[in-house]
Amino acid sequence: MKMDAVRRGVEDLIGAYAEVIDEDRLEEWPALFGDPCRYLVISRSNHEAGMRQGVMYAASRGMLLDRVFSIRRANLFEPHRYRHVIGPVRVKSVDGSVAVAHSHFIVARIMQDGTTSLFATGRYLDRIDTSKPAFLFLDRIVVLDSDKIDTLLAIPL
Amino acid sequence: MKMDAVRRGVEDLIGAYAEVIDEDRLEEWPALFGDPCRYLVISRSNHEAGMRQGVMYAASRGMLLDRVFSIRRANLFEPHRYRHVIGPVRVKSVDGSVAVAHSHFIVARIMQDGTTSLFATGRYLDRIDTSKPAFLFLDRIVVLDSDKIDTLLAIPL
Amino acid sequence: MKMDAVRRGVEDLIGAYAEVIDEDRLEEWPALFGDPCRYLVISRSNHEAGMRQGVMYAASRGMLLDRVFSIRRANLFEPHRYRHVIGPVRVKSVDGSVAVAHSHFIVARIMQDGTTSLFATGRYLDRIDTSKPAFLFLDRIVVLDSDKIDTLLAIPL
Repeated sequence: MKMDAVRRGVEDLIGAYAEVIDEDRLEEWPALFGDPCRYLVISRSNHEAGMRQGVMYAASRGMLLDRVFSIRRANLFEPHRYRHVIGPVRVKSVDGSVAVAHSHFIVARIMQDGTTSLFATGRYLDRIDTSKPAFLFLDRIVVLDSDKIDTLLAIPL
Repeated sequence: MKMDAVRRGVEDLIGAYAEVIDEDRLEEWPALFGDPCRYLVISRSNHEAGMRQGVMYAASRGMLLDRVFSIRRANLFEPHRYRHVIGPVRVKSVDGSVAVAHSHFIVARIMQDGTTSLFATGRYLDRIDTSKPAFLFLDRIVVLDSDKIDTLLAIPL
Repeated sequence: MKMDAVRRGVEDLIGAYAEVIDEDRLEEWPALFGDPCRYLVISRSNHEAGMRQGVMYAASRGMLLDRVFSIRRANLFEPHRYRHVIGPVRVKSVDGSVAVAHSHFIVARIMQDGTTSLFATGRYLDRIDTSKPAFLFLDRIVVLDSDKIDTLLAIPL
């Protein structure tokens, strides 16, 4: 596959991920991953220390769906939304049908009363299956710049 | 027209829009729209409720120009600038010469004394005329994530 | 060279710049510039007044490296990191092997204790050497929207 097509597909997948979360279409979120997969949200300092456990973890679509169900059921936390902006997507390598891509993000959080704040920044470290027209995340590691993980963290980042 | 060319043209138009606003070249802003057109700034909750009126509205280049004139004349509000960053642009469909594109934004506001704050986040829902080399907005609906619309809102978002 | 290839190379260079800074790989930062070069961080009001001196300045890779050394030696300021997101990249012109590109940025700053804030916004005005596979900055002028330059400014923006 030509490099330009890989880039476009990777950008589309990363764009779709931000869109389904920010538009509260969380039910569509697991379908962006392969099965099995690895989804991990972890702070940079823990990531650099080689830790493999983070604030959120899933190893299959089923586990991702469980996360969505628990968000839908919970209603305990104060309702809020995110808004992602993604910095330049960098395709680092393509090996067979697997692309490695890194990108940056800044996420704003909008509470139900409209209060908006800078919520999180960090990096996406992705391994992406490019073998089918709809690319899928094999690994998505979300490395948060800050160690201060908000206790409100429930929606995937 | 090939999909890649459509994407590029859409990205260019969206980039030009942010540039003319952020660089205070507002007089160039109406020329990015078709005539007639629809420009609407609305909160998400009102948008989802099906309301068609928002905080700003224009149906023609003339109305857009009126908005620019009133900003230039006003000098009443505290001078400030915006800085847009745009998340991934998603071309949703192309029907004949009309492309539908969605994108995300975060806008910072910089007051004259240099104070910078996170001002607004939201989505652009665009219908774009791709029939001429310079693409034009037919519809640009700016859906704000927050219901708290700043009373200072004067410059288009 | 085809316009699409120029765009891609420019986007890659701009992405690499954000990445080496945000990931604290500052030693790789000077290699993104030609030699001689011009790197200037300046406020918008000073830039518009035609001033050629700013908050940071370098005219060669050697001067850029000096900046990195002094950051590594200093350890005086409170440790922090940046996170860049870049708005749409606009290739303004290509003249021979030199491309002129403008882009927007918002930078968050993350202190060691995890406190995250909106730090700086502005524009990159670039002249880029496209003659070799790895594009290089000939000029990178960083125009800050705000005149309030943080006294902590040490890491390049």
